[in-house]
Amino acid sequence: MTTCYINGKYYPIAEAKISITDRGFQFSDGIYEVITVYNKKFVDLDLHLYRLLESLKKINIKINLNRSQLERISKKIQKINNLKMGIIYIQITRGNQHPRDHKYKQIKPNIIIYSIKKDLNKFDQTALKGAKATLYPDIRWLRSDIKSISLLGNVFAANHAKNKKAHEAILYNEKKYITEGNSSSVWIIKNNVCKTHPLTYRILKGCTRAKLISLLIENKYKFKETIFSTKELLNADEVFITSATNFVMPITKIDEHTIGNGKPGSISLSLRKSFIKAI
Amino acid sequence: MTTCYINGKYYPIAEAKISITDRGFQFSDGIYEVITVYNKKFVDLDLHLYRLLESLKKINIKINLNRSQLERISKKIQKINNLKMGIIYIQITRGNQHPRDHKYKQIKPNIIIYSIKKDLNKFDQTALKGAKATLYPDIRWLRSDIKSISLLGNVFAANHAKNKKAHEAILYNEKKYITEGNSSSVWIIKNNVCKTHPLTYRILKGCTRAKLISLLIENKYKFKETIFSTKELLNADEVFITSATNFVMPITKIDEHTIGNGKPGSISLSLRKSFIKAI
Repeated sequence: MTTCYINGKYYPIAEAKISITDRGFQFSDGIYEVITVYNKKFVDLDLHLYRLLESLKKINIKINLNRSQLERISKKIQKINNLKMGIIYIQITRGNQHPRDHKYKQIKPNIIIYSIKKDLNKFDQTALKGAKATLYPDIRWLRSDIKSISLLGNVFAANHAKNKKAHEAILYNEKKYITEGNSSSVWIIKNNVCKTHPLTYRILKGCTRAKLISLLIENKYKFKETIFSTKELLNADEVFITSATNFVMPITKIDEHTIGNGKPGSISLSLRKSFIKAI
Repeated sequence: MTTCYINGKYYPIAEAKISITDRGFQFSDGIYEVITVYNKKFVDLDLHLYRLLESLKKINIKINLNRSQLERISKKIQKINNLKMGIIYIQITRGNQHPRDHKYKQIKPNIIIYSIKKDLNKFDQTALKGAKATLYPDIRWLRSDIKSISLLGNVFAANHAKNKKAHEAILYNEKKYITEGNSSSVWIIKNNVCKTHPLTYRILKGCTRAKLISLLIENKYKFKETIFSTKELLNADEVFITSATNFVMPITKIDEHTIGNGKPGSISLSLRKSFIKAI
């Protein structure tokens, strides 16, 4: 059974519990990170832990663990659970507060770290065929730059994707511009120029996104951080998404619309290969 | 110590816990209700339980308790905890799901009911003096009609209010129109016409709001459900908020701006009196 770290102690997952007065539970007052473990190797661990500390700062939660302590616990969890392929999940909430009040006090945060097995090789097959996506309105709150657990908008989008038998939902805002996926960054390629949404309060600062930008520059691809419309998305030569578990995933169909010739784009596949090679 | 109902069992609050795999905890995938108990009397119990069932339907959670069973448990909790003044808090989440996935499965919901003591008479003093509010941008998700626990935007607003020593934050949208308070409905009176935001996806269907509309009609006040701007708010003759615990609360100051002559409006105070009388 999976072992979970909670506030300095280790529990089997069936006994891993938190108080009903936890502000994460009552107000989604907390943040999280998902760090991929690929063949026992941590992927972009530094970037994820850096972003985690940034998220905490943005919602004004102070913890008594530093980056290297979080790293040590994450690696211990990976070892205890003998995780070869999957993710390390970290969630930090503001802590228990009773009586319940929207206004928060300085309380002791709750820190949870555990692992989840995931067959990441399965995604290789999906990538070779190309994945299906579906469009959904971006109804999330206006601080998507924070990796918070306030995720009900994302859950709505993901479940819409599930109902449409799609791999991911791609979100468009009130002006019909694409923001990001329900849990990924979205990219298009048109006439050999690669585009993705600039970093604003509407999207998450993706770690895989950052890594991919380095790869694009390194490989001398033309690249622009710019907003693009739903129409541009559907008329792109290639579309792909990036995320901690998807790496680079070509999208070949969006609802009833075929992207390009319906096969994964050559640039997308080449970027996926380069990304996995770099792990 | 407060006793809490969790899924059919009763626990002292210190032992009232839920799994870290609960989707409410990980995704804010759940809803809640706050029902006021005033001198041992439940206020608008039917309206709150009706709205709770509506919220569940909106996020597609099915529970095996009906309205009268929820009522029975709520009353049992009030009795066990000997609650004279305060609230009954009900929270229902989609349930435990492992491995974590945005896409949800049909799982067993977690149902939590407990009580919180609150000195509601204290608010009488605040009402007689008039409360202070502060303006804050409405950064919440676009389904505020659902009483979900996806409340981090509300927490941001409430904490802004705390920092400004204000009773409540009043939220304005991207077009500078007022939507609602961080946990209340907002009303203005100008030239004897009372206005509040119409029921859309941007605001909650307030139970106290509904009750007040009946009172306004009954007492032959001029009343309009219509959007109004920040400017109209600041230039109103009277401003007040309504909520389950505030009942009718006159607002006399908004940031550095004084409303009317800086004293609670006569209509606001009269409505508060009528509301409390009707309990």
